[in-house]
Amino acid sequence: MLCDNISVNGKGHLCFARQDVVTLAEKYGTPLYIMDEDKVREKCAIYKKALTEAFGNGSFPLYASKALSCKQIYRIMKDENMGIDVVSPGEIYTASEAGFPMARAFFHGNNKTDADIRFAMDRGVGVFVCDGEDELLAIDKAAAEKGIKQRVMLRLTPGIDPHTHAKISTGKVDSKFGAGIETGQAASLVATALGHKNIELCGYHCHIGSQIFEISPFISAADIMLGFSAGIKKTLGYEAEMLNLGGGMGVRYTEEQPQIDYARNISGIAAEIKEKCASLGLKVPKILMEPGRSIVADAGLTVYEAGSIKQIPGFKNYVSIDGGMTDNPRYALYEAPYTVCLANRMEDKKDFPCTVAGRCCESGDLIQEGVLLPKPKRGDLVAVFTTGAYNYSMASNYNRVGRPAMVFLRGGDSYVAVRRESFEDIARNDI
Amino acid sequence: MLCDNISVNGKGHLCFARQDVVTLAEKYGTPLYIMDEDKVREKCAIYKKALTEAFGNGSFPLYASKALSCKQIYRIMKDENMGIDVVSPGEIYTASEAGFPMARAFFHGNNKTDADIRFAMDRGVGVFVCDGEDELLAIDKAAAEKGIKQRVMLRLTPGIDPHTHAKISTGKVDSKFGAGIETGQAASLVATALGHKNIELCGYHCHIGSQIFEISPFISAADIMLGFSAGIKKTLGYEAEMLNLGGGMGVRYTEEQPQIDYARNISGIAAEIKEKCASLGLKVPKILMEPGRSIVADAGLTVYEAGSIKQIPGFKNYVSIDGGMTDNPRYALYEAPYTVCLANRMEDKKDFPCTVAGRCCESGDLIQEGVLLPKPKRGDLVAVFTTGAYNYSMASNYNRVGRPAMVFLRGGDSYVAVRRESFEDIARNDI
Repeated sequence: MLCDNISVNGKGHLCFARQDVVTLAEKYGTPLYIMDEDKVREKCAIYKKALTEAFGNGSFPLYASKALSCKQIYRIMKDENMGIDVVSPGEIYTASEAGFPMARAFFHGNNKTDADIRFAMDRGVGVFVCDGEDELLAIDKAAAEKGIKQRVMLRLTPGIDPHTHAKISTGKVDSKFGAGIETGQAASLVATALGHKNIELCGYHCHIGSQIFEISPFISAADIMLGFSAGIKKTLGYEAEMLNLGGGMGVRYTEEQPQIDYARNISGIAAEIKEKCASLGLKVPKILMEPGRSIVADAGLTVYEAGSIKQIPGFKNYVSIDGGMTDNPRYALYEAPYTVCLANRMEDKKDFPCTVAGRCCESGDLIQEGVLLPKPKRGDLVAVFTTGAYNYSMASNYNRVGRPAMVFLRGGDSYVAVRRESFEDIARNDI
Repeated sequence: MLCDNISVNGKGHLCFARQDVVTLAEKYGTPLYIMDEDKVREKCAIYKKALTEAFGNGSFPLYASKALSCKQIYRIMKDENMGIDVVSPGEIYTASEAGFPMARAFFHGNNKTDADIRFAMDRGVGVFVCDGEDELLAIDKAAAEKGIKQRVMLRLTPGIDPHTHAKISTGKVDSKFGAGIETGQAASLVATALGHKNIELCGYHCHIGSQIFEISPFISAADIMLGFSAGIKKTLGYEAEMLNLGGGMGVRYTEEQPQIDYARNISGIAAEIKEKCASLGLKVPKILMEPGRSIVADAGLTVYEAGSIKQIPGFKNYVSIDGGMTDNPRYALYEAPYTVCLANRMEDKKDFPCTVAGRCCESGDLIQEGVLLPKPKRGDLVAVFTTGAYNYSMASNYNRVGRPAMVFLRGGDSYVAVRRESFEDIARNDI
């Protein structure tokens, strides 16, 4: 199976976290996002343990909450003693309303508005991950007005291309994010930060991309960042207290993709970092990482009801579901791979090649092509695995389709964490 | 200018429908969707007049409301005596709550659920555009339960590839939509429809794609549909009362694209249809068309505030705005072309080549690349033209960014049609 939280019961039904997905669909309706809370917690624990073991206390993971942002996920992160990465006032609002201790929140983004900066300070966000010169000045100004000294990390682009999908590769110098090391803009940004008295510089950040399956790009990035840090120590006398290596470790969407051992990866990166620091005469900084996808992706599954089954002789078969790009736009955006099954007929022979299509009036509204299923009937349940990240968070109301409910599973129980969107919700702001 | 509702005033400010966009941004905030209601009504009138002139009474346009669905647009369509095309219970709900006469609504979609079908009947939807055999049986069953005879058109795929973007080309036989003529499935669907007593068949529908600038694909589609109709008349004795040619006429997003004369196009298609009907011995059916994009696209403009301005020596410049793929995902989805300007500095020299980037933590969150602007400063206003279609309707809360407000302009006045989404709105369904 794709992930160890997937199984099949005696009725031939798909089980997720040992609960019958057919029963859950009957109870909560479709489409339905299902999250395995125990898996989320297990992943948090892996990252925490690996970072602490490798680098000691003070090194910890931040959950990149853009992968899945809702109040309940922030309660879980608080409970797990995680930090969080937030990217907008909307995420800051949600986390702080859920009671997350905002001193452990790191505020990202390539374009923080003045209003965003003030809102984040009002909500007590611990660290701003500053994206560039003009933002730094805006942070300093807002901090001065509020009479505070704001802790800030600087987002730098190490110039790494991790050979991942162009749209989610962000560590290259040509990026809307961060200040380039090779262009000299990073060094200039450090000097500016050190020269402003309402800024407390606490280190550097980089993020090289997403869905990276090897550790070598992370090691290259760490090497470059530490080399930069050593250079700054020499020229400006500042030694970074923290180094944030961002997120990006891959997640297994299909059987063909490897299963990553996150703990071993971190330990491999740690060995390199320690050696590099020793050779550069640096103290080993506190190391942060920002897993998002790898915390929640395979903790999530979406279950749909099949509707129209279309066989086009000589061409293709289409299975249409009661959701699609509105709840999961990743195939439309990136042709992202997913694994699909019939949740109520797991033991039936898979002999029907098909495209799984969404319900939107748009040809590109597909969930996956080239899928092999037992031939579905109207009313069968279609499950899509590994949808915990960037599905609900990217969902839309295109075609005025409501967003699904989200149910969390924990220790054999289930509970609603996000209510299903009603027609009234969708039209609420219409005048 | 791209469209005749765009001008520049004496202050060097962009005007839309003769109103100062800078003043509107100050009054309503950014990001802001601005809709020129007069332009929407003008476009409706062009389609209505052209169809009536060419085909007489009973031939009319349906506004394809997936392009922009909110209560106010349905009030305008009611007022303009348009029909509408709806694709989901959410659109049906919105239109009927806004008081639209639902007998003039045509219900589309490749996957209408049983609940959707009952809801549409309860709201008095006039015509179902049926996508296939299993849906036809579901409609018949629901109609029988309600004791009604449901008017139905059949969606057919004429096998036309209009050479447009693959994701928005839908008339090919290999499509999730409709029944293929060349596979014989269309004829079989007609026979099934005629054999069910709760179905009143009223004609055929096809939709060949979007952003089509020539009339030849429409003429080819009409030829094939009429040939099919003549064949059915011969074999089954049924002659279609209505032929719905769908939507798809192109819209001008950039100066390089042509301006379409919709009336002339319709008159050109009409000449062909009449000739073809005469040669086939058919009465000229009532002709429907389903413009969506061409009704609202250039009636819309989005205005943003510029934030971070990033110059990467030897690479590229980035201008970040306070919106992006959350309010306009079309560049992320299709690399759709748009025309961009600085609304508050229309007379300044455009000598700053740049990529206009959104605020989301995602490299692919861009609005346009290769744009030439006056070099922007933090706080300048960035306007993007031709955003009336498939922007608000496809918007998301990715990164928990709220959807912009939408303001309509009419006869020198402005009013809010959709309120700005608040943090509370975004987290409303979180438990």
